[in-house]
Formats: sequence, structure tokens, C-alpha cells
Amino acid sequence: MEGFSSEADYLQELDRRAVLPEGFRASTGRLTFTPQERPTQEPYRMNLSLLLADEPTEVFASVLTRNAFPGAPILLARKRMGERAVRGVLVNNKISNVCTASGVEDAERLLEELSRLVDIPATQLFSVSTGIIGWALPVADMVRALPPTVAALHTGSAVDFARGIMTTDGFPKVRSAKAGTGSIIAFAKGAGMIEPNMATMLVFIATDVSLPREEAQAALSEVTARTFNRISVDSDQSTSDMALLLSSGKRGSVSRSQFTESLFEVCERLAEDIVRNGEGTGHVIRVSVSGMRDESVAAAAGKAVINSPLVKTAIYGNDPNVGRIVSALGDFAGNSGVEVDRSRLSIRLGSWEVFSKGVFHLDRDNEVSLSSYLQEAAMNPRIKGYPQHDGRVDIQIDFGLGSEGAVVFGSDLSHEYIQENADYRT
Amino acid sequence: MEGFSSEADYLQELDRRAVLPEGFRASTGRLTFTPQERPTQEPYRMNLSLLLADEPTEVFASVLTRNAFPGAPILLARKRMGERAVRGVLVNNKISNVCTASGVEDAERLLEELSRLVDIPATQLFSVSTGIIGWALPVADMVRALPPTVAALHTGSAVDFARGIMTTDGFPKVRSAKAGTGSIIAFAKGAGMIEPNMATMLVFIATDVSLPREEAQAALSEVTARTFNRISVDSDQSTSDMALLLSSGKRGSVSRSQFTESLFEVCERLAEDIVRNGEGTGHVIRVSVSGMRDESVAAAAGKAVINSPLVKTAIYGNDPNVGRIVSALGDFAGNSGVEVDRSRLSIRLGSWEVFSKGVFHLDRDNEVSLSSYLQEAAMNPRIKGYPQHDGRVDIQIDFGLGSEGAVVFGSDLSHEYIQENADYRT
Repeated sequence: MEGFSSEADYLQELDRRAVLPEGFRASTGRLTFTPQERPTQEPYRMNLSLLLADEPTEVFASVLTRNAFPGAPILLARKRMGERAVRGVLVNNKISNVCTASGVEDAERLLEELSRLVDIPATQLFSVSTGIIGWALPVADMVRALPPTVAALHTGSAVDFARGIMTTDGFPKVRSAKAGTGSIIAFAKGAGMIEPNMATMLVFIATDVSLPREEAQAALSEVTARTFNRISVDSDQSTSDMALLLSSGKRGSVSRSQFTESLFEVCERLAEDIVRNGEGTGHVIRVSVSGMRDESVAAAAGKAVINSPLVKTAIYGNDPNVGRIVSALGDFAGNSGVEVDRSRLSIRLGSWEVFSKGVFHLDRDNEVSLSSYLQEAAMNPRIKGYPQHDGRVDIQIDFGLGSEGAVVFGSDLSHEYIQENADYRT
Repeated sequence: MEGFSSEADYLQELDRRAVLPEGFRASTGRLTFTPQERPTQEPYRMNLSLLLADEPTEVFASVLTRNAFPGAPILLARKRMGERAVRGVLVNNKISNVCTASGVEDAERLLEELSRLVDIPATQLFSVSTGIIGWALPVADMVRALPPTVAALHTGSAVDFARGIMTTDGFPKVRSAKAGTGSIIAFAKGAGMIEPNMATMLVFIATDVSLPREEAQAALSEVTARTFNRISVDSDQSTSDMALLLSSGKRGSVSRSQFTESLFEVCERLAEDIVRNGEGTGHVIRVSVSGMRDESVAAAAGKAVINSPLVKTAIYGNDPNVGRIVSALGDFAGNSGVEVDRSRLSIRLGSWEVFSKGVFHLDRDNEVSLSSYLQEAAMNPRIKGYPQHDGRVDIQIDFGLGSEGAVVFGSDLSHEYIQENADYRT
């Protein structure tokens, strides 16, 4: 198993992964502020992070949340997608800038200030926010933090950017891959509210591969559908989130399929990183559904399993309570109208077949083995600074009805999740 | 607020509520067994409970789970619904008799033994099981416990039956109401896996009101749709559950609307009891959705709020993080294709308007008031034997789009929930 024994160990590896492609610079600055909605004695801390291409690029793509009450950053991003060229993104954590009276104006004001400092039209810049919903951005404090953030822009390793965009994330998340003579690098923020369709997740992808804009968008849409939209930490989709891809085009081009393949490799790993670093994640769960007539139904069945609180708590307790898997599948099928046949269903947990031909196969020996298997895949959710290992709980479900399938990732439901979310804002 | 200061206090009230209608007897017996799937040193305990009408009745009705992998009790109940007349039900806790090789045969064997003892055809009896999914019933041990259970059949108060059907329930749940010269009494088991469509919930309703079978079924279906199918503890629907209504017809008839109204009163209170007694429930949450064009969409929007882990954990922590309510609604609307208008949405938490005309109204004063409001509605989930009070967290959502609405009930998500479900089977 891949794993790290200390934060320093992990950061060293990240330094290698986080090298910016040619034609990009990044930085992160800090500020403190007192939210007008909750004046406290201790001020709050916020990071302001920048990712900029050296020149305007016409090659950019995005996937934006489907939440019907999107935040100002999404409203602004929709406008930006109509621009001919863009340069980069300003990201703040702590406050998500959603449904406040002056949300869009606040974001535009910030971008105007940034525009002056970097001499880039504000219309070429994205403003992205993540954090508490419903509070207003501390614009004046943020404006004061812009000059040092701009002054700190640098090439090379951008672990600072990966760290700057974190909210309740335990560790920075970066993945990269070669693509021809160029590279693709992706940063992610996301720890809670992780569900399909870009749910409280920010992903920023920079590449120097030269490719047409339509290909970039097609690749991002296709890869997102099979990676970020196939993970769920708590089934909640957020108001704010997005995946954004920018190419500097400084290096050679590659075939469309090669670019998509490299992008998939990067995003698949990053998606699993997000789950592994989910709020309170004690086990990463991978559900592979096969034997379905339709890929989207297979994915939905897998989601039903990884979103079941009863499945999630059992796995947290290293309890191989496989009855709950069958119940979750039956619940999904019975209430979505998908026709299934119990006698064709088979389920494996790890390498043990626990259900086939309509009945459970449970005995003392496999209960003991299954419990050990779950224990071995467990992580200590209190170790936050780095991924301890890349072990996971594998659940394989075969409906025996067709040739389509899907893989989804999720997490268990732990005391630490409750702890983090019961008073997130303090 | 209604509430009880001790278990004895609550049982006294239950004794009053639990008086069987004319023409019914009930009892509960006990046994110990060693499950073949998990031989342990400590044997498991099981209750066997009986509810019988004195004579065969043609007036019976049911609503059964829609789970696509139903247990043997559901398969059997579907057959029984085709009988001309029935007499009653045998209920066991601890093991749910789902998807085992001999599930239906096991249930039939039990009913044949019971049939001999009470001189009632087995085809007039239901067998109902609740508990662990995937394990086999200890039939031989159960058969040995039948004679004393039958010998203990009694009229009058049936708190023993209400207690006998419990699994992880903290307290027995019974509600009753008058209907003309007769009465309706309903017993419920249910603490986890509570979601719409009869999810891990057993409800047994006995009445001596005289009414036609079709009216009984129509009333039960209608009332279930607006009570038991409008609650959710953890969004999981189970393989086993049912509501069963039997009438002895010993008392006078009432109008169809009066019967439905009395049944609604009983079931509405019982549904809230189930949520209040949910596994680890620290707050009961009532979400009232109005201003929708369609009742079922209003109910689904309410469910999206009470099933959001982030809303649930915030309420557990007495944190008025109302941004999560807006996010859950936007998630629901955006991904179900329901058209909404942010500028028409308004949200109240308790008596405070926290969102209207598209923006949040959050300031220091209402944050403090809201937090106190949540604290006052909190229950101590460690007090298990009786309901401490009937306080709840009221969330009112108005979409401003139409005249339809729905009310749903749910619970928060607590450490105690995790505790109970992380190793339920030990």
C-alpha cells in the first residue's frame, strides 16, 4: 500500500507532484477578519490564493454545480465562460459567498482590485469562494491582502496554493501526470458536502499541453462524469463548486484520446484523495457495480450503497453487516422502479462472496475474516496531515442482468464526521 | 411541553393508551438462542409477541415495504392479503428473516406450530420479523417458546406487546384514539432504517370499529402516505416492514371520514414517536414546506432537508447553520429538475425569518437566539426509557410558487447514532 508516515514525508512527495506546468504562476496570502454575522473575540483566518497563466488563454473549460441556489462565484463563472480568453483565478476559503445581498458585487470588486495590481482585465479572472454559506465576504480585509499575495507569485512547486484553498481538508491534494512533452496538474479542495455533480469541491487544473478549447471542454466533461461525479462523502451537493481547466499551450499537442486518458488518471486519483481526506473518513469504500443494463443505473445503485448511513456506520465499526448492503440495494431498486432479480444478484466484500443466488453466505469463519479485512482498511481519522495508506474496502455487486457497470467511491460515517460538522463554524 | 420525568411515569401513561379494543388478546414470551452465523459465549435474547383477534376477521389491511429484496415476512404477507379472513400476527425481534435459504419455510414452520396451539389455520396468521438481516431464525428455540407465549394471552393493557416488538427502540410506542363507540390502537417498532414507504418499521393497528374491508385498506393507505411515509431517521428503507390493521368489528361503525380522521390522529402521533425514539435522536425536526405546485414535490423537498447529513449534524450541535438548508434545497431542485426561484424563497427557523427575497438575514442577535432555540429543543439521547419532552425544531420553507405543501419529520445525526450503528450486532 502507498502511504506516508509523516506530514513531512507527504509534503516532499507533493512538492514533486505540484510543479506548475510551463506558463503558470501561483501564490497564497493570509488575512484575518471579524465576520459581521458573528462578532467574536478571536478573529477568523482566511487564505487568498492565486493561480494565473502568464498570458491570456483561449483554452479553458469548466464544470459547474447543478445546485439551484448557486453562489456568486458560479454566477460569475457562467459569465466568464462566454469570454474569448481568461488568465486565472482568485480563491478564498472560509466564506463561500452564497446568497448574500451583495455577493456578485463583492466578487467583482475584488477582481477589479486584483485587475489593477496584475494589469489583467477583470473579465479574464474568476473569483472562487469556499466555506460557510450565507455570510458576506470581508471585502475590505481581502483587498488589503491582495498586494502581498500578488507579490508572492511564483513558478515551480505550488504546494502553497494547494494548501491555501483548503477549508476542513486535512491535507493538501495534488495529482499530476505527463501528457506528451507537457503535463497536467490538478489541485483539489473538498472534505465535506461531497456528492456528484461538483459538490463542495473545487478543482483547478493547469496544463501546458496545446489543444483546442472544444477538446479541453469535452475531456473535462467526460472525465468529471466518471471521477468527481462518482464520489460521495455525505450525499450533499453544494452551492459553489466547480472544476476549472486552463491550458497555457506552451508545450506540444497530444492526441485527443491521450489527453483524456492523462486527465482521467489525474482526476481519478484526485477524486479518491478527496474521499480519503473527507471529514472524518475512517474507511474509503469502493463500490463496483456490474451486470446492469445501463451505466447510470449502475452508478446510482453504487451511490445508494455508499450513501446508506447504515452501511457507512457498520463499516466504520468494522462490522461486516452485509445485510445492510442488500437492504440498500433493494431500497434503491424498489423505489426507483429498476427491475432486479434477487436470484441473479451476487455480492463480494473484499475477496469473500457474501451473497449469491438470492441468499446470504454467512458463517463464523467468514465473519471473522471480513471483520479483520475491514480493520486492515481502517484509517485513524485523527491523523489529519497526510494519507496514512491507500487501502480501501472493496464491495463488488453483480446484478447479472447486463453488461454495463460503474465504480463509485465513498466513505464511512464516523464520530469524527459528527464532531467536525456539529459546530463547523466555531 | 408534554414529557415524562421517569420511565415509570411513562409506562403509567402507556398502560392507559395500550388497552386493547374489544375482541383482541396479546402476549409476549422470551427465549435465548445462539445464532449459527455468530456462535458466541453469551446467547442472544429474543422476544416472541402475539396479537390475535378472538374470531377470524375479514376486515384487515396492510401497507408493505417497496424494497426490492423483501424478507420472508413480506413474501408471506403478500399471500395472506389474498385470504378471506385472518386472525393475527406472531412477531419476533432480533433477526429479520431476510434472504436466507429457508426463510419462508422457517416462517411457515413457526406458524404451523402456532396453528396447532391456538387452533387457528396457519393461513390466517402473519409471521413478522425484525432485526439483523441475513441471519436465519432459530426455529427450534422459537417453537419451544410458543406454548408459554400462547398461555400468556390476555385482554386489557398490552404494554408487554409494545415492549416485545422492540429492537433498538428506547421505549415502547403506543397511541390510541376513540372512534365512535369503538377505539383504534396502534403499536410501533422502529428506531433505525426509518424512511418513507414503510422502512424498518412495524406498525400493528387493532380496532373494534366495524367497517368494510375496502374502507380499512383505503384509510390505511391514505394515512400511511401522510404519516409513516413522511418520516426519515436515516433515509434507509428496509426489507421487512409493514403496517397491518385488523378490525374485530365488535363495536359500532363510524363514517368513513371519521375513521380516517381518528386513524390519522393515531398514526401521526405514532410517526413522531418513532422519530423521537430514533437511534440516537437528539432533536426531532419538523420541516413544513409550502408554496409548491405539487404535494409530492413539497414532501421530497422537505425530505432533502431532513436527510442532509450537514443539516442534521448542525442541528445536533445546536448550530443554526441555515446555509446548509438552502444548499440542501438547491441541491434537490437542481438535480431533480424542479424549477424554483430564489427571490421567492423564504425560510423560518422557529419564529425567526432567516432567508427571504433571495438573501440570508443573519446577524449576531438572531444567531444567539437561534442557538438558544435549538438548545431548548434538544433531548439527551442517553435517556432512553421514555420521551423527555415533545419539543421539536421547526423549519418552515415557503417556495412562493403555488398552494401545495407537506410536512415531514426527521432527526438530527448524533454521536449516539454512530455508536448504536457501528456495531449493532454485538
